[in-house]
Amino acid sequence: MRFFEFIRDGKLGLAIGQADSELIGLCVGDAGYPGSLASLIEAGPESLAAAARTLRNGAPIALDKVLLLPPVREPGKIICLGLNYADHAKEGGFDIPAYPTIFARFASSLIGHGAPIVRPKVSTLLDYEAELVAIVGKGGRNIPKERALEHVAGYSIFNDASIRDYQLRTPQWTVGKNFDGTGAFGPCFVTADELPPGASGLKITARLNGEVVQRSSTDQLIFDVASIVALLSEAMTLESGDVIVTGTPSGVGHARSPALYMKAGDVCEVEIEQIGVLRNPVVDA
Amino acid sequence: MRFFEFIRDGKLGLAIGQADSELIGLCVGDAGYPGSLASLIEAGPESLAAAARTLRNGAPIALDKVLLLPPVREPGKIICLGLNYADHAKEGGFDIPAYPTIFARFASSLIGHGAPIVRPKVSTLLDYEAELVAIVGKGGRNIPKERALEHVAGYSIFNDASIRDYQLRTPQWTVGKNFDGTGAFGPCFVTADELPPGASGLKITARLNGEVVQRSSTDQLIFDVASIVALLSEAMTLESGDVIVTGTPSGVGHARSPALYMKAGDVCEVEIEQIGVLRNPVVDA
Repeated sequence: MRFFEFIRDGKLGLAIGQADSELIGLCVGDAGYPGSLASLIEAGPESLAAAARTLRNGAPIALDKVLLLPPVREPGKIICLGLNYADHAKEGGFDIPAYPTIFARFASSLIGHGAPIVRPKVSTLLDYEAELVAIVGKGGRNIPKERALEHVAGYSIFNDASIRDYQLRTPQWTVGKNFDGTGAFGPCFVTADELPPGASGLKITARLNGEVVQRSSTDQLIFDVASIVALLSEAMTLESGDVIVTGTPSGVGHARSPALYMKAGDVCEVEIEQIGVLRNPVVDA
Repeated sequence: MRFFEFIRDGKLGLAIGQADSELIGLCVGDAGYPGSLASLIEAGPESLAAAARTLRNGAPIALDKVLLLPPVREPGKIICLGLNYADHAKEGGFDIPAYPTIFARFASSLIGHGAPIVRPKVSTLLDYEAELVAIVGKGGRNIPKERALEHVAGYSIFNDASIRDYQLRTPQWTVGKNFDGTGAFGPCFVTADELPPGASGLKITARLNGEVVQRSSTDQLIFDVASIVALLSEAMTLESGDVIVTGTPSGVGHARSPALYMKAGDVCEVEIEQIGVLRNPVVDA
């Protein structure tokens, strides 16, 4: 199933459908509204399937009349991997890591599909990063790799927009990864059963103003989704709704010569095969 | 005022008092229970003052009958500073930073006063870090330094227990700072009006099994609380309940010769003058 959470006329709603066709859904207050996407992910696959059946009896939702939201708006954790494609580690001057390089985003940086990525007043070095997202369903600790994918409820897309001078100003990247309006996440949540195991082997592409700037496949991840879940859970309890942003392939603007940064008026798209297209305009703060 | 949030017989409660004397408070379901500490911090200083007046009519709370909780259990952000005391930056081999070095904790790592700090199965390099916490009251973005302290509702204490091999395994410290049972936070929340501006000039001490291992003053912070709030808010919207963990002075176990790590049976205490003592035993996972 492919779920879209949205706001219409101030009301939270949930729809199913394909990104490019009309959606069918229900809003808070409608008979049969099944609850927020986060609550359904927590309740498990059967609840998601039941919700999808209910939503098929909903009303058409015109995409241009709604504000799409990130699939999880207040995750307990947003765990991001750096340097998880060999070609990207190399273009940044880093060694291929033997253990995942992890940083965190705060929910305050998240925006949905269609919302503007914001170039702040304090920097012009706003870069794009196309990434696959895995969303935790069933939580756990010390999850063995061979059971890890049972803990992934589904997948989505992220544009991990980065303020490069702030990211690289100190040894820790956190500030440059947490500006308001830089964590684009959506457009939808695709349940794991719709995709190959671990969402592997899917084409991932970033386009800036229509021009392809990143092109790879999720089978190029150094640490695949199952490995990430297993390794993270050695340290911390994973919880339902936790968001794992799996890293970006080569082609980021900062590593280009000349460098290519996003500016007001640009449109950035991240596409992952079988999931959809995450599209965001760029504005100045 | 000095607030303690706790669980007693499965019920959330809130008390006022001094750490070493009997507390007076109310639990959910009691007439006059004023709400959670996080909700009062969000509601503002007048709500905190009104709650304190109500709690004075509550019942005695025996500290040994309750489980004290972190002052904020689900912060939107836990923003941690590294290298924010000159002597500690030096002992770790880092330059004195010109901009704050920021990393993040997830709420899943938090424990309260008295709860065990957990040494995981995968590492023996469990270290202590005594830190002052500032808790955001009124949120904001682009907060000028001269107004910054108006956004701080109050202060608490943190033991930023760190798994050093995981912290230093990759360029990003996140995993080594986010093991379950390593973010000790409490025992209480002290409103800003009880302390000097920015909680500056307070003695901060860590003791391991009664022996002083860190001793400094919060006036040694490289970036003081007002500067941190102003600088962070250039990047991100600060929100009520956000937790800012301001960094540790020298004396951490990893920088000693020989190194000194925490092990099962140890008791670690962090004391900050005019706030209290945060005490946690250490156990093996």
